[in-house]
Amino acid sequence: MPPKTAEASDTSFAKTDRNRIRRLHERGTYDKEAVFAILDAAMVCHIAYVIDGQPFCTPTAFWREGEHLYWHGSAASRMLRSQNDGLPVCLTVTHLDSLVLARCGFNHSVDYRSALCFGTAHIIDDPDHKAKLLDNMINRFYPERAASLRQSTVQELKATTVIGMEIEEAVGKVRSKGIGDEEEDYALPIYAVRFPITQVVGEGQTCVRMPHGVARPEGLSVFKPGRRLDEIMTETYGKSGL
Amino acid sequence: MPPKTAEASDTSFAKTDRNRIRRLHERGTYDKEAVFAILDAAMVCHIAYVIDGQPFCTPTAFWREGEHLYWHGSAASRMLRSQNDGLPVCLTVTHLDSLVLARCGFNHSVDYRSALCFGTAHIIDDPDHKAKLLDNMINRFYPERAASLRQSTVQELKATTVIGMEIEEAVGKVRSKGIGDEEEDYALPIYAVRFPITQVVGEGQTCVRMPHGVARPEGLSVFKPGRRLDEIMTETYGKSGL
Repeated sequence: MPPKTAEASDTSFAKTDRNRIRRLHERGTYDKEAVFAILDAAMVCHIAYVIDGQPFCTPTAFWREGEHLYWHGSAASRMLRSQNDGLPVCLTVTHLDSLVLARCGFNHSVDYRSALCFGTAHIIDDPDHKAKLLDNMINRFYPERAASLRQSTVQELKATTVIGMEIEEAVGKVRSKGIGDEEEDYALPIYAVRFPITQVVGEGQTCVRMPHGVARPEGLSVFKPGRRLDEIMTETYGKSGL
Repeated sequence: MPPKTAEASDTSFAKTDRNRIRRLHERGTYDKEAVFAILDAAMVCHIAYVIDGQPFCTPTAFWREGEHLYWHGSAASRMLRSQNDGLPVCLTVTHLDSLVLARCGFNHSVDYRSALCFGTAHIIDDPDHKAKLLDNMINRFYPERAASLRQSTVQELKATTVIGMEIEEAVGKVRSKGIGDEEEDYALPIYAVRFPITQVVGEGQTCVRMPHGVARPEGLSVFKPGRRLDEIMTETYGKSGL
């Protein structure tokens, strides 16, 4: 771990050379609740890791339990098996909130929320812990769903790799100011606009091979057509008890 | 570069240890047009790079010109300045297309399109090339917009880092099959559903400080409220002439 320039506390991540914000125009936060809010509004993250000096960046579903993050097997699994000490990773979540079209190229931007989390990834080998985590994953995204499913077989559990890491350091970055032009540019006859961007859920397409009479579970009522996925994920996280 | 297991061609990226698909349930492609279609439908990517053995994963806007990818300055810029040979990176684009709720935990999944591109990042130092690239970036996202903007100042150009890489290898991964359960599970009384996910643009919010009479440019007519961002990006890419 790099030398700390600010110690961690109950409410803040440590500030080190690894997670320190370098660009002034980005609003950075080391506040744990702020970082968690960005993470818990997402299902998909991107994970960076290194194999023989080569960086890889893979998308995957993930979830948080306290100060730990978990995800599914990935191309890194093979590597992880041979590394007892774990693998350094950076897990990043990004929400694109708007496109910002300003009066000069320099001030074009996007509003966004992102969180970078640094830690050391380990494979969860204990079968009971793994089974519990997989239930947690299902219930985190889809409230109360795990108990309604056909139980996993021993073979399925074996074929699933679960990876976890403690968040050693993290930083959240948020831009939300919309258009920010130079004062002297506002009077120019140039069209400037902010386009909001949202990720939304559509009408659920039930499986055509479902037997008659299978009702939609109450736990899925949050998945209303047209609703924002980040809001749904925040709500389902709240219901998960994690 | 790792040893090749299949040579590159005009239409396909080389297949090597670096980009070879390892998980059978993922549909991988090395076809250039397929990879480009995934890239050109996006504005935001995630870039993995390594500094002193530590991986970083940062989101940024990017665009493609032929077999080159370009993006804006990032935390890696400082590192890049000291590395004449460039910095190995993995640039990844992901589109989340649906949530797949199957009858057992193991078959829960998401439909998605992603592309991983491997290359060596370099800073574009030539001022004319840099200025041209920045105009290309604006026009790639917002058709014909660059010419309508207040010109960049020398200071603004200096303060902007543009980074580029040739795509040395790439792989596209697509899952689009929706629900895929074990044959014996279909008869179970378990609710199974696919929720489509789309990223959409909202109603443009014009800047309140715009002088009266500034009309919306024709080039922005593709940004219709409710339209999918991936479709808009594909269309604007087509209009960019890149």
